Amino acid sequence: MNGAESLVRTLAAGGVDVCFANPGTSEMHFVAALDRVPGVRCVLSLFEGGATGAADGYARMAGKPAATLTHLGTGLTNSLANVHNARKAQTPMVNIVGDHATYHLRYESPLKSDLDALAKPMSDWFGRAEAAQEVGPKAAEAIAAAQRDAGKIATLVLPADASWGEGGTVGTTLARTVRAAADAKAIAQAIDALKGGNALLLLGGEALRAQPIEIAAAIAAKFGAEIAAQSRDPRIERGAGRVPIKRLPNMTDAAVTALRETRSVILIGAKLPVANFAHPGKPSLFAPEGCRIVELATGQHDLAATLDALAEEVGAKADPAARLALKRPGLAEGEFSPEKLAQSLAALLPENAIICDEAVTSGRPMYGALAASAPHDYLALTGGAIGIGLPLAAGAAIACPDRKVVLLQADGSGLYTVQSLWTHANEQLDIVTIVFANNRYAILRNELKNVGITNPGDNAIRMLSFDKPRMDWVSLARGFGVPAERATSMESFNKALEAAFSQKGPALIEVAL
Amino acid sequence: MNGAESLVRTLAAGGVDVCFANPGTSEMHFVAALDRVPGVRCVLSLFEGGATGAADGYARMAGKPAATLTHLGTGLTNSLANVHNARKAQTPMVNIVGDHATYHLRYESPLKSDLDALAKPMSDWFGRAEAAQEVGPKAAEAIAAAQRDAGKIATLVLPADASWGEGGTVGTTLARTVRAAADAKAIAQAIDALKGGNALLLLGGEALRAQPIEIAAAIAAKFGAEIAAQSRDPRIERGAGRVPIKRLPNMTDAAVTALRETRSVILIGAKLPVANFAHPGKPSLFAPEGCRIVELATGQHDLAATLDALAEEVGAKADPAARLALKRPGLAEGEFSPEKLAQSLAALLPENAIICDEAVTSGRPMYGALAASAPHDYLALTGGAIGIGLPLAAGAAIACPDRKVVLLQADGSGLYTVQSLWTHANEQLDIVTIVFANNRYAILRNELKNVGITNPGDNAIRMLSFDKPRMDWVSLARGFGVPAERATSMESFNKALEAAFSQKGPALIEVAL
Repeated sequence: MNGAESLVRTLAAGGVDVCFANPGTSEMHFVAALDRVPGVRCVLSLFEGGATGAADGYARMAGKPAATLTHLGTGLTNSLANVHNARKAQTPMVNIVGDHATYHLRYESPLKSDLDALAKPMSDWFGRAEAAQEVGPKAAEAIAAAQRDAGKIATLVLPADASWGEGGTVGTTLARTVRAAADAKAIAQAIDALKGGNALLLLGGEALRAQPIEIAAAIAAKFGAEIAAQSRDPRIERGAGRVPIKRLPNMTDAAVTALRETRSVILIGAKLPVANFAHPGKPSLFAPEGCRIVELATGQHDLAATLDALAEEVGAKADPAARLALKRPGLAEGEFSPEKLAQSLAALLPENAIICDEAVTSGRPMYGALAASAPHDYLALTGGAIGIGLPLAAGAAIACPDRKVVLLQADGSGLYTVQSLWTHANEQLDIVTIVFANNRYAILRNELKNVGITNPGDNAIRMLSFDKPRMDWVSLARGFGVPAERATSMESFNKALEAAFSQKGPALIEVAL
Repeated sequence: MNGAESLVRTLAAGGVDVCFANPGTSEMHFVAALDRVPGVRCVLSLFEGGATGAADGYARMAGKPAATLTHLGTGLTNSLANVHNARKAQTPMVNIVGDHATYHLRYESPLKSDLDALAKPMSDWFGRAEAAQEVGPKAAEAIAAAQRDAGKIATLVLPADASWGEGGTVGTTLARTVRAAADAKAIAQAIDALKGGNALLLLGGEALRAQPIEIAAAIAAKFGAEIAAQSRDPRIERGAGRVPIKRLPNMTDAAVTALRETRSVILIGAKLPVANFAHPGKPSLFAPEGCRIVELATGQHDLAATLDALAEEVGAKADPAARLALKRPGLAEGEFSPEKLAQSLAALLPENAIICDEAVTSGRPMYGALAASAPHDYLALTGGAIGIGLPLAAGAAIACPDRKVVLLQADGSGLYTVQSLWTHANEQLDIVTIVFANNRYAILRNELKNVGITNPGDNAIRMLSFDKPRMDWVSLARGFGVPAERATSMESFNKALEAAFSQKGPALIEVAL
């Protein structure tokens, strides 16, 4: 058995059965091994960021890592923006990066770069298989490393000769460590904070499933406290039949206002809330001075068990009456507004959909408007590196083939990984992509104001606009093989959305704002 | 003056008057400064690799660096594949990377990553301006560093507070160091090698302008030696009226065959010829065992002056009779073949065109077929990281607005930075893009054979194909605002090419192979 085959067999044995790939020369034996070994589904991406973004979406929904396959240092760098997002989401991921044959690395060949130095800053675990014998065992290590805590980024470099060399063995992946609830001391501190009044239970990660949210809400109710999601969350289970949870705003002014009266923030899988960016004269920290921060549980803990333990300690019980009843608004009509688009989506959303949100400015009313619509999962941009929407949706659709995926996509962000539309078509994924086409980096225009520039000149406006010419998303989508329509009013949007929801397979709606 | 303004002024004063930008939040003051300070033209890219690839094309033709502007660690990583290509081309480049405000970096904000660690492996010079006062002087250092030797990659990190802070001063860029010819000892070694017989003068970098090629050919003629370009060259001046130079093949078997009888290789701005990739049972080095390698001159030297000195030493004189007469073939007809496409391009090529070649497998006959066509510059993929063609053409067109740019683009490679088509449209660049649409990674199918896999299965074929669905390049181009036609035979190709050459502005021809 060569190294490549031992890798595929180790992945399959370790439960990693999907590989998002953008292969190159050094990965040809791996590609060939996919034919000999059953059990790993390979999905082609036409750009590396499409592979890592899809692996993120897959793992968020499947609850286990996918593999990615990229080529050398430069293929790796193309993949890293979405590795960053995955890392901030605490997504488990196994990245396989093909490299030159070990003995060829001494030469300055055209594609040689410092692959290891480029990979390490974005990896929680890094390994290199120096020979075929090492491939299986190191791959098993990588799979285990990816599943440490809530989830980690594991990167394994696979030199071509380790791949084609004989002597490979299948590695055995150790079972995932069972995570414990937070300890009694941390729980006591949380209770103390709750008793102090004006407390906020800030949830992140796996605390944002329906069941732990319900428990958290029950605890909060007992103390007149509040609950919130930290915003930029990998996955929130919500909608009708579930207890609602608001998100902490992620823009500084709104977040500071939201926390003005908060006396303590109890972090349950959430990070200390800080500004995305510093702005002149504004604070980095959202919580007011003197606010107590209690880190009750992190990705190292079982967050649901932690909330259960806390609930038991304080005698809080889930209250089914807190669950929202289904409440669908009517369809909105007339000219576009973000609020109307959100209203129509809330009216039509299919049961059990997966919403991927990279809508940036245009998507702001969405989260609120969908609160009591059909039950759904809400997946957000966790690391702020734009260009995740189209890949994330692809990965989620592959993890959950029986659920409709709805992608809320800003136009500027969507362009970074626009090639993933082809993967939607190639795999015939059940994804409806809604592109909010304002032909500008609207968020940056806001940021100009945030840093005190209220009257930008021509050059600045030109750097923040792409309306000359206007992008034609219907042509782009069709170019990649995805059926598409342009909506110019709420009526045509409603019609296109109903049509897209009534059938399976990829579709794109350009909302011409 | 704030730091951002001092940066723009320092760039302009240092002769860096074009900036290829994909800005984000942390760069808003730089963007605003572009309005206050004249002298730096800013070109928007919708993906970071488009910015760095364009800066490469610009510098290859302008002979001086452009700046790029990207956003944080993840914007930087998106830019690095084309930085790699530029570095292998010895292109001068000044990369400005916006970062968080210095005091915000202590927090784990969503977009924080280890920017410095990601930038350093791809940079020859790296700096970080910690305050507004440092921005101008460090930028001047970066500009000087970019122009060391043939050209270097200089990366300057610009924290947001260094950008918005007051106290900026304009930095003074030291004049570029005059490079000397190789010394007498190296020249003596080269002469010794030439006298030994069967020598090859292998040229790279600036040795591939028309004048030094002519001198090198005269030297070679004197000794019955040969000249060749190293292949994967940043820029070769060639065509009618110039002395021809062949390229060393870059596939192992052909290169080894070409060098079989070579007794010595004299490197003049070229690197030791090595395989792109190792293959089982094939050598890494192209030159036969025992072949003498003389490194006559590198990017640290004045290559033209080195060849002049060598010519004088051996009494070689340029021979105008060695220059090729213009020889245009007739238009090819009938079904497509790479040779026929090359023939028709040779028939129609405008005077003084710039050819950017990322055609990979479909482009192989191009270089040979164009040898005696109209004079032109030939720009190749230097670092093997695909996704440079569309940006490279954009940069070349901005450097040389009076010359027609012809981009030979493989479809698979073109997709990596397909967003650059919009920059072609936005800037109305005079670029004719010819997409060779075979809907597969043809080079990887060859590579499968190279590593001994002659009968790939379905999974392997699926990982190397994107014909389900077929990409529609005409739709893609129109989506980005570039007029496009599909050619299905040589007749329609000829017609589309004549039409594209008869007018200014961007156009795309999909060759439906």
